Amino acid sequence: MKFLREVGGGVCAPYGFKAGGIHCGIRKNKEKKDFALILSEVPAAAAGVYTQNLVKGAPVVVTKKNLANGVAQAVICNSGNANTCNANGIEIAEEMCSLVNKVSGIDPSDVIVASTGVIGQPLDIQPMADGIESLYSALGDNSDAAAEAIMTTDTKLKSAAVEFDIDGKACRIGGIAKGVGMVCPNMATNLIFLTSDVSISSEMLQAALSDDVKTSFNMVSVDGDQSTNDTCCILANGLAGNEKITQTGEAFTAFKKALHFVTVKLSKMIAKDGEGATKLIECNVSGGKTSKMAKNVARSVIKSSLVKAAMFGCDANWGRVLCAIGYAGEAVDVNKIDVTFRSSKGKVAVCENGYGVEFSEELAKKVLSQDEIQININLNLGGCKATAWGCDLTYDYVKINGDYRT
Amino acid sequence: MKFLREVGGGVCAPYGFKAGGIHCGIRKNKEKKDFALILSEVPAAAAGVYTQNLVKGAPVVVTKKNLANGVAQAVICNSGNANTCNANGIEIAEEMCSLVNKVSGIDPSDVIVASTGVIGQPLDIQPMADGIESLYSALGDNSDAAAEAIMTTDTKLKSAAVEFDIDGKACRIGGIAKGVGMVCPNMATNLIFLTSDVSISSEMLQAALSDDVKTSFNMVSVDGDQSTNDTCCILANGLAGNEKITQTGEAFTAFKKALHFVTVKLSKMIAKDGEGATKLIECNVSGGKTSKMAKNVARSVIKSSLVKAAMFGCDANWGRVLCAIGYAGEAVDVNKIDVTFRSSKGKVAVCENGYGVEFSEELAKKVLSQDEIQININLNLGGCKATAWGCDLTYDYVKINGDYRT
Repeated sequence: MKFLREVGGGVCAPYGFKAGGIHCGIRKNKEKKDFALILSEVPAAAAGVYTQNLVKGAPVVVTKKNLANGVAQAVICNSGNANTCNANGIEIAEEMCSLVNKVSGIDPSDVIVASTGVIGQPLDIQPMADGIESLYSALGDNSDAAAEAIMTTDTKLKSAAVEFDIDGKACRIGGIAKGVGMVCPNMATNLIFLTSDVSISSEMLQAALSDDVKTSFNMVSVDGDQSTNDTCCILANGLAGNEKITQTGEAFTAFKKALHFVTVKLSKMIAKDGEGATKLIECNVSGGKTSKMAKNVARSVIKSSLVKAAMFGCDANWGRVLCAIGYAGEAVDVNKIDVTFRSSKGKVAVCENGYGVEFSEELAKKVLSQDEIQININLNLGGCKATAWGCDLTYDYVKINGDYRT
Repeated sequence: MKFLREVGGGVCAPYGFKAGGIHCGIRKNKEKKDFALILSEVPAAAAGVYTQNLVKGAPVVVTKKNLANGVAQAVICNSGNANTCNANGIEIAEEMCSLVNKVSGIDPSDVIVASTGVIGQPLDIQPMADGIESLYSALGDNSDAAAEAIMTTDTKLKSAAVEFDIDGKACRIGGIAKGVGMVCPNMATNLIFLTSDVSISSEMLQAALSDDVKTSFNMVSVDGDQSTNDTCCILANGLAGNEKITQTGEAFTAFKKALHFVTVKLSKMIAKDGEGATKLIECNVSGGKTSKMAKNVARSVIKSSLVKAAMFGCDANWGRVLCAIGYAGEAVDVNKIDVTFRSSKGKVAVCENGYGVEFSEELAKKVLSQDEIQININLNLGGCKATAWGCDLTYDYVKINGDYRT
């Protein structure tokens, strides 16, 4: 992937984007930012993918409507309250778009709106109405402030950006994300805001994003709970000056590769910072008869509470991996399955042809004690592969979620 | 249900059954029994339902084969090792049946064999071969010893029995069960052994059992992990002397009612003793358009890690209940959903028509602090109902599973 150069700047890495984040008062803790804004200098092609949960946050409904024409120029987002299951939710989400209009003149229907936090508590517009001027004044090369303001129980800021070339023109894609609980995306994931200065039609942008999430955010699970507010949006404002991408071809492929680099990086950040997590678990499945088989097996393993708890305990309990493969709903051949654990400390084969093999428990413990672990599975039935990302299940997950609202 | 009389005795409550359990040495801890036997004086009609996991314990394969003719006379079971994913698993399971033959003369093919414990570690026949004589000598009115010997991380013995009448003849059904991790049955659940002295054909016995588990054991989830060794078997030896049940009708209905009483009681015991659990959660869904809708919604809520953690924290975070309803894969109408929490301390309506309603947090805390809690959901779309049972997610679940093998 030499053609990609990782850069800093997050959503402000692409030309023509400003971002900012402040504390406006939705959260009680004044140290925690809770209100974020991202703006493009010019209207941008825009695309989005959303939660498939039938219980949808009001902002998801409004954003879908606003993106129907494939154009947007701003993203506004609050944390501390999901604005979901509220009788006046739509109204509040629309008022948030109007606030952007008030300070920037951008049409309210060109605003992407998102909220994250507790479900089912009324969201007061007042702190945001009072804070919008300060937020607008805070705009600049401040992607990190925006990334901070969309965090809920996240412990780490999630940001990534790359530079790459199309037709000899340097282009950029940047993104910020939040996790980290209620994470089991289905066609989208929690909140991901991506920006780019590539010139591309909104149709091709949507195609790229919809395809991308299948192997990035949709392959992440922290706790198997699909959020009501999942939203992943991208704005591409065209300021890089490349010839506009309107069909598949070399330029589109380059764009998709760059996009995938950013989305996979953010996916891993979301998984690694899963609520209470001490480690990132990557499950690589090869030898699938179909791509669906490989994906379902990878997701099943990454979602298993028992596998997750074993990884927390650095316990090479591979029987639980086999168990999760067995209930993945795919016609695997148990007697062909190989399983290996791997990390920076080495690798340990634990199961071959569906049966246990002798291995050093000491080495296994060392391998599994690292903060990034791979569970590598070969189904030996074909050439299809998939990767899923998750994290371990820990005391802190229980602690965080045992009393989240207080 | 006046016609049912709860009785003691577990699997020995029905006439003609003896049971026993000893420590034979599979487990290191000599205080823990690990070898159980249940015997009927005479050959019995027999039926079973099993895990749908493609990774199946060797005992499941052997039991299925032995029950193909609908007749069995004994159940042998060890704990401490699941005899799953072992190259010689089938051989060991068959040897266990032969051990029963050796001491009792019962045909090996009339033996139900089961194992529970760690997956993927070779199971040595020697401790069982050495212990079978002692186990046979220990047989008697000792259902509890057998129930104890099949426990793994269970903290409580699970046993139930009822007496009821068919044609004026007193009949009995008894059962023992083990949970308590890797519990998310699909067409069966962990280990459940049921006995009865009713006279019934094996076809009708199988029909009753297969139907029953749909609304009993299959509606239980502790951690969403479907075990490799789920087995639920019933023996009916006919010693009650009723006219043999060979078709549907009053007698069959009475039998099914009695069976359901025992299986629901055991289901709740399994859920309440879920690994690390501090409380039983019962999710009652009414107003479903279809029975499938009600069931899938109940199961989705009971399986949600976030709902489970909130219940541990006595936190009336009903938004998580809505979220889990929303991803249940059923076409619910979000704006018609009502949710109420209930326990012996009262009830609290928290959501009406999909939106939050004001409620006393103090009362909610009191209601949720009990050790048996109901989450009652009305979908308001039709007349179908379902109930599922589960437990809270606690620090101890993580502790137990972080290092299960050591």
